Amino acid sequence: MTKPSPLSGFPELLPTQRHAELAVIDHLRGVFELHGYTSIETRAVEPLDRLLKGGEIDQELYVLRRLHANDDTDSGLALHYDLTVPFARYVLENAGKLEFPFRRYQIQKAWRGERPQEGRFREFTQADVDIVGKNDLPFHHDIEVARVLAAALRELPLPHLSMQVNNRKLIEGFYRGLGAPDPAAVMRVIDKLDKVPATEIHPMLVSGAGLSDAQAAQCLELAAIRAADASFVAEVRSLGVEHELLDAGLAELAAVVEGCAESASEQLSVEANLRIARGLDYYTGTVFEVFMTGYEFLKSVGGGGRYDALATDGATVYPGVGISFGISRTLIPLLSRGVLTASRAVPSAVLVALSTEESRGDSDAIADALRGRGVPTEVAASAQKYGRQIRYAERRGIPFVWFPGTDNTSDSVKDIRSGDQRDADVTTWRPPLEDLRPQVTTKEQAL
Amino acid sequence: MTKPSPLSGFPELLPTQRHAELAVIDHLRGVFELHGYTSIETRAVEPLDRLLKGGEIDQELYVLRRLHANDDTDSGLALHYDLTVPFARYVLENAGKLEFPFRRYQIQKAWRGERPQEGRFREFTQADVDIVGKNDLPFHHDIEVARVLAAALRELPLPHLSMQVNNRKLIEGFYRGLGAPDPAAVMRVIDKLDKVPATEIHPMLVSGAGLSDAQAAQCLELAAIRAADASFVAEVRSLGVEHELLDAGLAELAAVVEGCAESASEQLSVEANLRIARGLDYYTGTVFEVFMTGYEFLKSVGGGGRYDALATDGATVYPGVGISFGISRTLIPLLSRGVLTASRAVPSAVLVALSTEESRGDSDAIADALRGRGVPTEVAASAQKYGRQIRYAERRGIPFVWFPGTDNTSDSVKDIRSGDQRDADVTTWRPPLEDLRPQVTTKEQAL
Repeated sequence: MTKPSPLSGFPELLPTQRHAELAVIDHLRGVFELHGYTSIETRAVEPLDRLLKGGEIDQELYVLRRLHANDDTDSGLALHYDLTVPFARYVLENAGKLEFPFRRYQIQKAWRGERPQEGRFREFTQADVDIVGKNDLPFHHDIEVARVLAAALRELPLPHLSMQVNNRKLIEGFYRGLGAPDPAAVMRVIDKLDKVPATEIHPMLVSGAGLSDAQAAQCLELAAIRAADASFVAEVRSLGVEHELLDAGLAELAAVVEGCAESASEQLSVEANLRIARGLDYYTGTVFEVFMTGYEFLKSVGGGGRYDALATDGATVYPGVGISFGISRTLIPLLSRGVLTASRAVPSAVLVALSTEESRGDSDAIADALRGRGVPTEVAASAQKYGRQIRYAERRGIPFVWFPGTDNTSDSVKDIRSGDQRDADVTTWRPPLEDLRPQVTTKEQAL
Repeated sequence: MTKPSPLSGFPELLPTQRHAELAVIDHLRGVFELHGYTSIETRAVEPLDRLLKGGEIDQELYVLRRLHANDDTDSGLALHYDLTVPFARYVLENAGKLEFPFRRYQIQKAWRGERPQEGRFREFTQADVDIVGKNDLPFHHDIEVARVLAAALRELPLPHLSMQVNNRKLIEGFYRGLGAPDPAAVMRVIDKLDKVPATEIHPMLVSGAGLSDAQAAQCLELAAIRAADASFVAEVRSLGVEHELLDAGLAELAAVVEGCAESASEQLSVEANLRIARGLDYYTGTVFEVFMTGYEFLKSVGGGGRYDALATDGATVYPGVGISFGISRTLIPLLSRGVLTASRAVPSAVLVALSTEESRGDSDAIADALRGRGVPTEVAASAQKYGRQIRYAERRGIPFVWFPGTDNTSDSVKDIRSGDQRDADVTTWRPPLEDLRPQVTTKEQAL
């Protein structure tokens, strides 16, 4: 076997990087569970026709074929490209066995056959958190989901994150109140504001969405409004547009922003951003996007919103609200730049040294005693000189080396970072809490 | 969207079942990390030619094709069918960045396009634990891996498991010492003993492997030896066969069995079983199989062994020893029979009741206080009568309902299983430890 090369778009992590990713995943999982969200996993594949109903990304699907299938046809299955389509199918398939409202989180891989670029992969991990009702889902769940995501994000060891919220009712009501002939067309043009300067958007609103110059200017004024509190309501009102859908949207957006006020931290800001539309058609109220400060080139690293029909079987409709957070999209650029890393390559907090190969049983017993008390421990691979065993630990980032006692000396443990060595009893010694697991560390990066 | 049907061979779990699976995965992960094994994940796909080198299961591969690829050719990628081939590739690809011996565990899905049957799926999760050296890997790591797996398995909430160990050197040395013209042919026939009675194996050894009647009888005697301690050595010796490879194998197998003696428990037995060969050619010493008592029809639920060349790039060889445990193969039959389940469908230990919709903020604050102290909590979806809110908790298996106090009364918490209700303070109250997370429960099943 010759040395293999990485596959573009299919990122894999080295052990240290994986520890950082795992710490992030465990943290998200912990927060989701504390809020009563249940883990589910869906299969990697869906029937092709269901995936194509989603519409917009059919060219990016990976279709499966059994290598030695009897005929040349595909299996009719493809890898899922997100976790929403599979979740909607899971809800319909198991509706009779689920209790609604149904809260679930899902941390899994998804696949898209698109051209790889930084932050966009062919295989990627994302974390989705949704709450789904049967026939109805009160608005307060929009606030709930926003707070859950804020709680999850505000303690992550990442650069500053910005959670930006808008409301489809608000913008649609505004365009309607303004007399726009085709509100959806306005939304599509405004949605380009993250790529195209406002001066170029103005003529597109006139020519493409049928607005007058004055209407176009008002739409751009609306889109420029941002606020970390409910002060945006007065700003919108001052534009003088009236519509009952606008009223409903303003009230909802104010409630979400105020509901998240206490969630904001140095690490996380939450604000109304009236430019956010999100391309996907099925959002009907609250919409979210998450951006990472200094990494705006990644576009949003998370997003979601309210959909009045996540799924329907004709008789019953399942409205939902949820957010998905791009774990690979967020972490891989940080890991590859060394901005995010972990303190060691192994889980072990302790290396038990080995004085002779014959005494391996003694070192094993020490290791088992430490493990029994929750301390990740490994035993030296061979009975080299102690200096070499210490370097063995150093190369792996293991902070402590344990030296078994002899007839005349007791056991001792050395912190190989400080050089500090002291007698220790295996039945009572414990490493400092921060050394128990690999620590995730972040480095400031000159951007 | 009409109601979808499950896809045969692609099992999915309901929330309660998933809690049980997750508890098993978390337990395995915890034990692996305590022993210094690092988590890695490999991508789902490998180049088709690498997977085909593995040989024996080419007809079961799922090949990928981009739906709108420019030409009709496949992408040259297929889903991995196990975690060993990807791990070997990962080791070669990253050898310069890894420290050896390298301990890793990997808990991931794999895919095989084979015909689904009970315990055999097209998509399944398995847990692999391996240790890999560079150029050499001392034998004591065989004992280590056996002990890690035993430590992981002996506390699982499963039916009794039997870890059975053998050694390729032992059986090959025995066949050679016996004068078998083709030891590999003998091994292949003996390997059928789990499906074919010994009376039929005897003539196959004569006709298919060129043995005399007496030699065939001795091979069957060897294969019948089982022991939970090193007593098998004397039994083998009493057959009167001599070969230095046999000596080496006997010593290794005795060391593994004795090394695991303290790991055995009511839940787990560890024994030498001289019938175990394992079909895969690359094993060179220790071999393992795991069986679940009462579920022998699943065949082995885990297995592995020592391979002197897990991977090689020509210049360097990477020997390894490891075991893989079939999570789906083990759990799905138990979950589908109701033998294994979890105590509730949601992570929440507490439902905070809601007296009126206007007081949702108060109930949210109580929930946040409990979450802040590590208690998974949700708030009632609507301000129904308290009796209905209690039934809401009951249906989800949530053990406690918290009633916010009023101006005249303090908060109280009710254990809805016992009906016991008492005053409680959100800053100090804690559920019993066993109620904090969904408990995995097992039911005896009449088999």
